[in-house]
Amino acid sequence: MGVILSLGERKAGTASLEPLVECTQDGMEAVNRLILERTGSQVTLIPEVARYLVDSGGKRMRPMLTVACARALGYEGEGHVRLAAAVEFMHTATLFHDDVVDESNTRRGKRTARLLWGNKETVLVGDFLLGQAFKMMVDVGSLDALRVLSEASATIAEGEVMQLGTAKNTETTEDEYLEVIRGKTAALFQAAAEVGPIVAGADRATRAAFRSFGANLGIAFQLIDDALDYGGATPALGKNVGDDFREGKLTLPVVLAYRRGSPEDREFWRRTLVEGQTDDEALAGAMSRLAETSALADTVDRAKHYGAMARDALAPAPESPEKAALLEAVEFCVARVH
Amino acid sequence: MGVILSLGERKAGTASLEPLVECTQDGMEAVNRLILERTGSQVTLIPEVARYLVDSGGKRMRPMLTVACARALGYEGEGHVRLAAAVEFMHTATLFHDDVVDESNTRRGKRTARLLWGNKETVLVGDFLLGQAFKMMVDVGSLDALRVLSEASATIAEGEVMQLGTAKNTETTEDEYLEVIRGKTAALFQAAAEVGPIVAGADRATRAAFRSFGANLGIAFQLIDDALDYGGATPALGKNVGDDFREGKLTLPVVLAYRRGSPEDREFWRRTLVEGQTDDEALAGAMSRLAETSALADTVDRAKHYGAMARDALAPAPESPEKAALLEAVEFCVARVH
Repeated sequence: MGVILSLGERKAGTASLEPLVECTQDGMEAVNRLILERTGSQVTLIPEVARYLVDSGGKRMRPMLTVACARALGYEGEGHVRLAAAVEFMHTATLFHDDVVDESNTRRGKRTARLLWGNKETVLVGDFLLGQAFKMMVDVGSLDALRVLSEASATIAEGEVMQLGTAKNTETTEDEYLEVIRGKTAALFQAAAEVGPIVAGADRATRAAFRSFGANLGIAFQLIDDALDYGGATPALGKNVGDDFREGKLTLPVVLAYRRGSPEDREFWRRTLVEGQTDDEALAGAMSRLAETSALADTVDRAKHYGAMARDALAPAPESPEKAALLEAVEFCVARVH
Repeated sequence: MGVILSLGERKAGTASLEPLVECTQDGMEAVNRLILERTGSQVTLIPEVARYLVDSGGKRMRPMLTVACARALGYEGEGHVRLAAAVEFMHTATLFHDDVVDESNTRRGKRTARLLWGNKETVLVGDFLLGQAFKMMVDVGSLDALRVLSEASATIAEGEVMQLGTAKNTETTEDEYLEVIRGKTAALFQAAAEVGPIVAGADRATRAAFRSFGANLGIAFQLIDDALDYGGATPALGKNVGDDFREGKLTLPVVLAYRRGSPEDREFWRRTLVEGQTDDEALAGAMSRLAETSALADTVDRAKHYGAMARDALAPAPESPEKAALLEAVEFCVARVH
């Protein structure tokens, strides 16, 4: 019978993204070359934005997923590189449009594209990237991959629209919030993971396994992001804490703290999120309410549930360095909160 | 700030359905009277089946939910009784049809309706009950309640059809299995809980809270049922263990054990579920594999996650004996596994 590796416990605290970065290195270098190539344009703004994008230093989780999921199934071709670049373009287009919609000035500590080049330009470069993404998918020639990625594209937009409705609505339930992040985050993780087996010619069950892996990893990833924005499971006021709060963004920690709080607590959350009272004193009030209601610790617990689902989804896949790296990436995503 | 009642810990092991039974007693007596009244028919078979139904001794969770959720919001009318009876009719119709589809001979230790009255009769009495259910909803006159319950009716059927596809498919992912139980179990729990606030005239946020409560309670309830069928979290071969197994029913414990197992383990599960090798020796093999892969304990863990979501969903509702009873019912459902 199978040996049960309790990765969750074995790797706690030591899980790393390194194995995933290493085993996708060749593929990701090809992805970067393709990104630069596909953003060549007579319009000088576009190569400039492309460089910004290549240098932006994100973790590149999504395209790494595509590369690793294809390679995990022994794929030896080049299609996964184009699909991975398409996934990254879709992701960047979403970020560009989000920053304009949210009027954000910084992202990962850098000035946003809309501040550097303007709102209209940023929206249109986003559209250009989306168009290029679909062109690359067409080049790969897999209608299945096109279907999966275009569905994700629609679902992401749907999730963003849904978020406009929940953004200032403190009554949002956890289920409703999950719908939002299934759209805005999990849909692309899911598609990024599923196009791997598609391009590798895997069967229906394997596709379903990778799709489920990607979706649940995406949910776990987003929930941990939500907790990290308030300093993680054991919060302390730090200098990068509270960006979501200041933007009046409703995330799971707030959903839980609101629901679990007293009528006075709920009044407090309405003042901050709806009326925009988000100064340092309000942030301190938010942090203490998050701690008293265990909202951050329970957000991490919820994330662990989706991490466990992601692991079980991938379990039947054949053993490979990529599979091991993907499983460790789940641990990393969940553990980075400490 | 709010006082955090860690119901999960406080009530562990002592949680009971009694408070829910007590606070819905008057309503449920009216529901039983209505069931007998609405199954009066010139066709003698129908009152006979009705008596079988009233005496069948199920926990009546679903109609109790409707009664309690309406009363929790101060509803003083009689509409909730009709809606609760409609919910129970819908549930019974589903059971009747299921037993025919699955060719089951016993349910809760009693001979099934199809053995007592025949397959055709059981299907048609199910249809009669569904028709009566909709008539009672129409009597209440709430289009919103009709919409919620008719949506549930369609979703339940969809879940059952989906289950035909997953029944013998050992490759089913946890996400796919969750879709099945969202349909076949959670949809009616969700609707049963949501028509309470609807008939009580509650606002959108309150409806969403109760809907989410019902859905997550339904998922937790089903997962614990799945675990109990193999004797609970710490399995031991008992005389009522293994009904799902002998019927070749794919449930979450099997999904997890299959995915976590070795290639030989997977071969074993295919032999049992697909080829129907479900004798006592096979059951013993299943039990030891479920234990070695922690599949039962983790099914219970998953159920706890949905139980926690149900609690948080209901948290903002005004305090009342019914709310307390509903929260304790969540604990009871999750704790009954020990």
